[in-house]
Amino acid sequence: MQDQWINERLTSQISFLREVDKLKNVLRKTFIMDKSRLENTAEHSWHISLMAVVLQEHANDPSLNINQVIRMLLLHDLVEIDAGDTFAYDTEGYLDKEERENAAARRLFGLLPEDQRGEWMTLWREFEDGITYEAKYAAALDRLQPVIHNYYTGGVSWIKHGIVKSQVLKRLTPVQEVSETLWRFTLEIVQRSIDQGMLQDDPIAKEVN
Amino acid sequence: MQDQWINERLTSQISFLREVDKLKNVLRKTFIMDKSRLENTAEHSWHISLMAVVLQEHANDPSLNINQVIRMLLLHDLVEIDAGDTFAYDTEGYLDKEERENAAARRLFGLLPEDQRGEWMTLWREFEDGITYEAKYAAALDRLQPVIHNYYTGGVSWIKHGIVKSQVLKRLTPVQEVSETLWRFTLEIVQRSIDQGMLQDDPIAKEVN
Repeated sequence: MQDQWINERLTSQISFLREVDKLKNVLRKTFIMDKSRLENTAEHSWHISLMAVVLQEHANDPSLNINQVIRMLLLHDLVEIDAGDTFAYDTEGYLDKEERENAAARRLFGLLPEDQRGEWMTLWREFEDGITYEAKYAAALDRLQPVIHNYYTGGVSWIKHGIVKSQVLKRLTPVQEVSETLWRFTLEIVQRSIDQGMLQDDPIAKEVN
Repeated sequence: MQDQWINERLTSQISFLREVDKLKNVLRKTFIMDKSRLENTAEHSWHISLMAVVLQEHANDPSLNINQVIRMLLLHDLVEIDAGDTFAYDTEGYLDKEERENAAARRLFGLLPEDQRGEWMTLWREFEDGITYEAKYAAALDRLQPVIHNYYTGGVSWIKHGIVKSQVLKRLTPVQEVSETLWRFTLEIVQRSIDQGMLQDDPIAKEVN
């Protein structure tokens, strides 16, 4: 059901822009700050794009290409339209996550004119591969944001899913790789979360202490 | 109620990033594409940032600085956290819109460290003043997106508020200024909306015909 508009390129682009609206209905496991409801992936994408700009100075490497980061963050979760949001700590869901997301990327970016399709696919792959500094910085924010949300919503999502410290820290490795300051912040917020009973310390670590 | 984190800058930045989360609760008059609910301003900001990238080639001036546009779009509506969303066709609401939004900008950007506060205020003013090509292109998308949404949701918001063609076209003047293709698209989507009974033609225009 594709309406024809002016020319073929615009027709494809409008069709794509209609389709991506569905990201507003993909719910995450994280609550918005006032705890009134779960966050959706579209508003999450906006929040971390803004976050990337605000926290840019904390990247260890000042040559960070922030514009590339923002572009990646704007599109990084589009695949969730087909593949859904896989909870960060859902090991089973992660088994076929890559396959589901690759198919989603092909379908969604496939709506765009061919040259743009290639560009967007490349940008999405850069994020997924996590090799460039920009991809790592983007991933760092993507993972730090829910931690901040969890902390400020009384750890509701961590408690519900019984998450422990080591799971969070492992997930936040990209932060350690890109920013000394943000990593110190991460350790601090994780510690305060444990102290305030929002996050469980690891069972083994408890025995050692 | 500002938590202290690592250093003063990060403390300010985290406080700002918590506060902007409130944009997720500011509702617009436009529905999301599946008509299930009103759109909020955070997800709208994400959608038009993505739209800016996808439709970039249609800007008449190829020297458009798209990165500047994206930054403007990410923050342009933050003031709505305090000032609320003023409906595009609410003439009364527009009377004190500027005053309300200036106060909001001072408070919100005031949460950031001083140098960032200045940068963000400048960027927001650039958008509001609408003089640079980037500001005009950003405004064009900000105004085109709800038209696309209205068209694809059966004109529900236009019908509810009794909007007529000339109001929409006047509001979409920035599109005419920045893009020949997008302006042709605008005229086309407005005409189809009228033909399909989603938007009223102007009473005077009707008499002439």
